[in-house]
Amino acid sequence: MKLYKWMSAPNPRRVEIFVAEKGIDIEIIEASDPANPGQLSAEFCGRYPHRRVPLLELDDGDWIGEAAAICRYLETLYPDNPLMGATPKEIAIVEMWDRLVEWEGLMAVSEVFRNTHKLFVGRGLAGYDREIPQIPALAERGEFRLRLFFEKIDEQLGGHTFLAGDTLSFADITAFCAIEFGISRRLAIPDECIHVQDWYGRVSKRPGVAN
Amino acid sequence: MKLYKWMSAPNPRRVEIFVAEKGIDIEIIEASDPANPGQLSAEFCGRYPHRRVPLLELDDGDWIGEAAAICRYLETLYPDNPLMGATPKEIAIVEMWDRLVEWEGLMAVSEVFRNTHKLFVGRGLAGYDREIPQIPALAERGEFRLRLFFEKIDEQLGGHTFLAGDTLSFADITAFCAIEFGISRRLAIPDECIHVQDWYGRVSKRPGVAN
Repeated sequence: MKLYKWMSAPNPRRVEIFVAEKGIDIEIIEASDPANPGQLSAEFCGRYPHRRVPLLELDDGDWIGEAAAICRYLETLYPDNPLMGATPKEIAIVEMWDRLVEWEGLMAVSEVFRNTHKLFVGRGLAGYDREIPQIPALAERGEFRLRLFFEKIDEQLGGHTFLAGDTLSFADITAFCAIEFGISRRLAIPDECIHVQDWYGRVSKRPGVAN
Repeated sequence: MKLYKWMSAPNPRRVEIFVAEKGIDIEIIEASDPANPGQLSAEFCGRYPHRRVPLLELDDGDWIGEAAAICRYLETLYPDNPLMGATPKEIAIVEMWDRLVEWEGLMAVSEVFRNTHKLFVGRGLAGYDREIPQIPALAERGEFRLRLFFEKIDEQLGGHTFLAGDTLSFADITAFCAIEFGISRRLAIPDECIHVQDWYGRVSKRPGVAN
């Protein structure tokens, strides 16, 4: 199997951390264009109509896109140290939190980034080969949503060690990648969200996470 | 178990069709406010901090939000007639397509609807209890994305009976609900997308789908 990533993009980073936390040995390939690292390479886009990373190429040549689908596949192949829940109810709670984090956190950060950064003029959305204009009002909405997201997970983390319970799960990985990416775009964790601050510090020191 | 829905909203409809296709007998409760059906009831919002439908209340009082998490939970409890794939690879392919449909199709329809309809002035996003202004440019982008979505699934359905293979899956249900909802907002399937037209006709006649 081969896993394709793109620079520091948060979605492939979710799979990279998942793989590292579970101790899965897998070849990771950078999909950016060496001459123009702000773009995915023409070879990658020509080969995979999905045009997004992460992408997992299987040994039979088939491929799977979308971080959660890739991680669920790997979780089945490597069931030790489950990160997506062990019982049906745990699996549902992890997926619920992961989707909530994607929708309210990761998407909010992406809205800010894609609609303000010069690199993405005319590329307001990932995965399209047409011109998608940036929308300044969407960046503004993204900052507002991100603030509400921090408040929501701060409340959850005030009563739980990790987002979906007592152990690290895929939902924490998604939240960590969203926040880490936001911080790199100067979207800091609010000072008063002390539970998020504490959780972020703990997650960032894990061997599978620290660079 | 109790399943909460809200009028004709597409996300609860995904779970309703899933349950009907699998033949699961479950109590379905309307969560809208009887005095103001355009809003979720105060009782529902007070009881469930998730503030979104669908929501599945378990017999022990715990609850699960998010359509895909609910359906995966029900698929584990009722494994006959799998709609989310049978093998690890099938499960991954169904989840990939479901997420692609959510992101490129369902979200596009929602962007149009939430940012143009009078009912949602000041409520540009589902699940928030703060004012979220409508963004006209986002409705325009949604229409453009929806067109590209139809082209993409038309290509896939030209070579496959259903989106993720030879049998109906949760990805088809998500796509059907997105398109059905779009049609109700006058966002028709383009005439030239003949494979989508054919597939939509077949899915709409299924006993679990037809109203």
